Amino acid sequence: MQSAGDTLYLGIDGGGTRCRSRVVNSRNELLGTGIAGPANPFQNLQQARNSIVEAAKMAVTAAGLEPGCLAQLVAGVGIAGVNVPHAYQLMSAWQHPFGRMYLTTDTHIACLGAHGDRDGAVLVVGTGSVGYAIAGDSVLSLGGHGFPFGDTGSGAWLGFEAMRAALLAMDALGPATALVAALEHELGANRLGIIDAMAGARSRDYARLAPAVFGVADAGDPVAVAIVSRGRDYLDDLARRLLQTGVGRLSLLGGLSAQYASRLSLDVVASLHPAAGEPDAGAVRYAMLRHAQPAASERTPAAV
Amino acid sequence: MQSAGDTLYLGIDGGGTRCRSRVVNSRNELLGTGIAGPANPFQNLQQARNSIVEAAKMAVTAAGLEPGCLAQLVAGVGIAGVNVPHAYQLMSAWQHPFGRMYLTTDTHIACLGAHGDRDGAVLVVGTGSVGYAIAGDSVLSLGGHGFPFGDTGSGAWLGFEAMRAALLAMDALGPATALVAALEHELGANRLGIIDAMAGARSRDYARLAPAVFGVADAGDPVAVAIVSRGRDYLDDLARRLLQTGVGRLSLLGGLSAQYASRLSLDVVASLHPAAGEPDAGAVRYAMLRHAQPAASERTPAAV
Repeated sequence: MQSAGDTLYLGIDGGGTRCRSRVVNSRNELLGTGIAGPANPFQNLQQARNSIVEAAKMAVTAAGLEPGCLAQLVAGVGIAGVNVPHAYQLMSAWQHPFGRMYLTTDTHIACLGAHGDRDGAVLVVGTGSVGYAIAGDSVLSLGGHGFPFGDTGSGAWLGFEAMRAALLAMDALGPATALVAALEHELGANRLGIIDAMAGARSRDYARLAPAVFGVADAGDPVAVAIVSRGRDYLDDLARRLLQTGVGRLSLLGGLSAQYASRLSLDVVASLHPAAGEPDAGAVRYAMLRHAQPAASERTPAAV
Repeated sequence: MQSAGDTLYLGIDGGGTRCRSRVVNSRNELLGTGIAGPANPFQNLQQARNSIVEAAKMAVTAAGLEPGCLAQLVAGVGIAGVNVPHAYQLMSAWQHPFGRMYLTTDTHIACLGAHGDRDGAVLVVGTGSVGYAIAGDSVLSLGGHGFPFGDTGSGAWLGFEAMRAALLAMDALGPATALVAALEHELGANRLGIIDAMAGARSRDYARLAPAVFGVADAGDPVAVAIVSRGRDYLDDLARRLLQTGVGRLSLLGGLSAQYASRLSLDVVASLHPAAGEPDAGAVRYAMLRHAQPAASERTPAAV
């Protein structure tokens, strides 16, 4: 065990597309960063573990440290899905190479990164959608239940609802919509060929259709407008419930934040604050918070 | 080539759970039947082919014929998914053991079986949902686009919408509903554990929740009632579009036919007729119709 002054902290921000890392000293001075491939334990557990180690090694190397020092690092790891008990257990059971590993959700570290020591909330809308608030000693997590049944308003949800609407329109069992032509164009397919193109599709495949859905809505197509409005209404409700915890600050994050920033209700928009820092900095902050509680045992991150 | 009087016909009804077969002579007299495992080319192409051959061999054996006579059979094969071009191509490319094979959808043979030589329509509601009408020389196929984006009103759709509603209710971002307790009970899980239980679930897994959804609706839960009503409204619309083709007969088939028969609108219910025969008999009928058109080339079954 090193003395407190020498403790090095690793922050890991694991996502479905890439994994970011940073190493800092005990005064939170940045020593090095790294970036590696996907780290989503639901999609590929071994790949997620490999990406975390790879990103950590890159940050350590960038910091001018020996690879062997991984065993001294106090790691804060934020990763999607670990609010679900089974995924948390799979990640916790890992014989990881770090000195200590404190595990929490990607949303939690995004919130810690966005607001630092202050109370605050995040609404993350990209491929998925999720809300998280830290208010004093309590946290509130909403949404983030994953595709296909959760994540209302997200990119994946928008693409999925557009597919549903287009297929109903093709049968004349739903209103005609320009979404049919838009999806045919996006998928390079005609009519029922869009089913073929999306057979077995994952959340990211549906999310790739989201820009087209926004485009058709912006052109005034009533069906697309209705889909986007349903997503917007859900996110408005979610944001208001986060703000009801008493936090004054809400950051809108994720790949669709710009698209929704212009659509959310004025009362919600009035509470929006830019994020102060990145999720990997929030992961470092989480490691420091947990490491300062020596008696704390590993546990599933509280959902509510 | 045998003389016309000696031609034997094989009817195959391939489904996601089992594959049924029958062999008849040229006067459509039943010689033997068989039954084998799943035959869904989307789920498992090789298994589907194996099940078809196994069911065919059983029917041939039951008819007291030599296994080698498969090469003389004129087969009508009705199987899910071949309205989608890619699945049709995969099944058509098969070096099957039959003398001739005429391929069409499971819904088409269900319609031929239900109505024989008469015009008629079928509305099939089980794990999936689909409508099909034969009116003179034209056919109309509606729905049947598959899970998760199609098959409104089906068992899989009911289970899926119940999951969505339960998760919204848990977050208090949707109305409270007894579906939460019902799904927890069905899945042997608590709260977010239902996500775990349904992670990666297929259409049949969602369809297993359908009886619980009907049960909660029958007990008066407004959220469950709204879901079932949306499914019922879609199926009413679908049935009316089928009847608009001019067919006077509509048969309601599939595992949820009893549940919906009591819920459909009176104008639709007034057009319901029991099916005259089984889908495998419709597959035989299809083989006979196609074989009587010697110039007809293999083609994708017309969708509309």
